[in-house]
Amino acid sequence: MKLVAFSSPISASHFRIGAMVDEETIADLTPAILPAGLTAVEILRCYDLANDFLTPAHDAVSSGDLPMLSRREIRIEAPVPRPGKIICIGLNYRNHAVESGMEIPKFPIIFSKFVTSVARPDDPIIIPSNSVQTDYEAELAVVIGRKAKRISADNAMEYVFGYTNFNDVSARDFQFADGQWQRGKSCDTFAPFGEFVATKDEVLDPHNLRIRFRLNGETMQDSNTSQLIFGIPQLVEYLSRSMTLEPGDIIATGTPPGVGFARKPPVFLKDGDVCEVEIEGLGVLRNPVIKDV
Amino acid sequence: MKLVAFSSPISASHFRIGAMVDEETIADLTPAILPAGLTAVEILRCYDLANDFLTPAHDAVSSGDLPMLSRREIRIEAPVPRPGKIICIGLNYRNHAVESGMEIPKFPIIFSKFVTSVARPDDPIIIPSNSVQTDYEAELAVVIGRKAKRISADNAMEYVFGYTNFNDVSARDFQFADGQWQRGKSCDTFAPFGEFVATKDEVLDPHNLRIRFRLNGETMQDSNTSQLIFGIPQLVEYLSRSMTLEPGDIIATGTPPGVGFARKPPVFLKDGDVCEVEIEGLGVLRNPVIKDV
Repeated sequence: MKLVAFSSPISASHFRIGAMVDEETIADLTPAILPAGLTAVEILRCYDLANDFLTPAHDAVSSGDLPMLSRREIRIEAPVPRPGKIICIGLNYRNHAVESGMEIPKFPIIFSKFVTSVARPDDPIIIPSNSVQTDYEAELAVVIGRKAKRISADNAMEYVFGYTNFNDVSARDFQFADGQWQRGKSCDTFAPFGEFVATKDEVLDPHNLRIRFRLNGETMQDSNTSQLIFGIPQLVEYLSRSMTLEPGDIIATGTPPGVGFARKPPVFLKDGDVCEVEIEGLGVLRNPVIKDV
Repeated sequence: MKLVAFSSPISASHFRIGAMVDEETIADLTPAILPAGLTAVEILRCYDLANDFLTPAHDAVSSGDLPMLSRREIRIEAPVPRPGKIICIGLNYRNHAVESGMEIPKFPIIFSKFVTSVARPDDPIIIPSNSVQTDYEAELAVVIGRKAKRISADNAMEYVFGYTNFNDVSARDFQFADGQWQRGKSCDTFAPFGEFVATKDEVLDPHNLRIRFRLNGETMQDSNTSQLIFGIPQLVEYLSRSMTLEPGDIIATGTPPGVGFARKPPVFLKDGDVCEVEIEGLGVLRNPVIKDV
C-alpha cells in the first residue's frame, strides 16, 4: 500500500490517512478504519506494525467502497508529519564519499535533522538568506514500524514499516564552517520527504532500486541502492545498539554521487529551481526552491 | 514557580504538572487548572507563554488550597517529557574549549541529542556495553516558551520559558571516532534534565549562576554561567535565524571546564557512580550510573 497523510485546506492541523490509488486519486482510510482528524502523534501509531492498522487498511482498500478524493481537493502532508527522530547516514555510497574528498567510512556516520526541518511534498525549499551554498541530496528513507533496541541485522527488517523518497537538503556553507553538520542540515524546510510511504510488501528489494535526482528536469544523480555501503539491516542493528528506534522514526540512508558542491563547477540551488527525487516504485518527491530575503 | 512534570507509578504514560513547594512537597496543579492525565504533547502546550497557563498556575499556588503530594508518592518525570528538539551548544565556555584542545569558537557550534536520550531525574544513566569512555557535562538548559523564528537578541528573552539543570552525557569513544557527535551524545539515557523548570521570573540573572558537577560527591566542575561565550539572547538569535524554535525545545548551553576526558588522568563514568548537576536556584539533578551488559 502507498500511504499518504493529508489534510484539508481548512483544517491543516488535523490529518487523515489515505491510500494512493493512482497519481490523482487517494482512497480515504478515515473514518472507515480510523477516527477523523488525527494529530501528528496519532499518525505515528499507524506506523506501529504491532497495532491493528495495516490489515484492515488493506481490506478496506480491497473492498473498493472507500471515499475517493482527488489530490487537487486535499493537501498532501509529509507521510510522517512529525517524526520523533530524523536520523541521517553520511557518506553511505562509496563514490559520494570519494567526490566529497572523505574517507570511505568503516562504520555508519550518523547525523540528524531537527523535526522543524520537515517539508511537505510540493512545499518550497527555502534557502536561508545567509546561505549561498544550499545543495540537494536524493536519498532512500526507511520508516520504522516498531520499537527497536538491540536488534540484530537478521531480524532488522521486521522493524521496518516502509520506504519513501527523501531530499537531504544541506547548506554546505553552514555544514563545512561548523564541522558539526547539524545546523547546515536542519534549516526549516530542509527535510522534504514523501509523497507516500510504500509499505515494505510493495518493495521487492530495497537494496536494488534506481535512485535519481533531477534539477529543473536535468538528471544530476542516477544510481542504485545496491551501491549502499551499509544496508538497511546493518543500519538498524548499528543504530539500535545505542538508541531506541520508534515507530515513525526516519532513517535517511545516504546519497549517491552527483551532489552540487562536488561538481565542477559547483551547482547550488537558487530561487525558481525545481528539485525532484525519484526512486523506483516510490513515486516522485517534487519541491520548488525559493530564496529567503 | 518551580514546575515539575510527574506521573503516578500506576499510570506512567500520563503526566501531571505540579509546583515544587519544597524539596519534599509538590502542589498538584491538576485538575485545578489543567485536565488530569496530560500526554507529553499536551505538556508542551503548558510551555507556550502565549497560552493562559502561567497566571492561573501562580494564582492557584498562592491560594494555597491545592492538593499537596509527597514526592515519595509520585514519579518525577523530565520536566519536558518529550521535547521536540534538544539543541546542544559545543565549546561554549572558553576554558572547556581549551581543555578539549579545540579552538575558541567564533560562532556557536550546534549539535543535538535525539528525544529518545531523555532520562528522568533519578533514572540511571546507562553506559552502553560497547563504550568505555562515557563522560558527564553539567550544563544550564533553557526551555523555550514561544515559537521563535528570526528573533533578535534584544527580544530573545521574551521567548524563554525558564531554566533547568542538564547533564550532557557523552560517550567520548563514539563521539571522537565518528567526528560527528550525534551518536556519542544520543545513547538512550544520555539527556537527563530537571528536576524542575524554574520559570524565568525565578532567576534574577541566568548569566550569573554558579554551576557545579559532582561525581560521587566530589566536585569536578565548578564555574559560573557568566563565563558563557555566547549568552542566551545570542543563542536564540543565532538558532532562530535558520530554524524555528518551539515551546518545550531545550537549549543546553554548553559545559564549563572539568569534564572527565580532559583530566589527567582521565575520569570516565562507571557502574555504581552517582552524578549530580547543581545550578544556583535550580536544585540538584541526581542520576546513578549503571553499565549495560
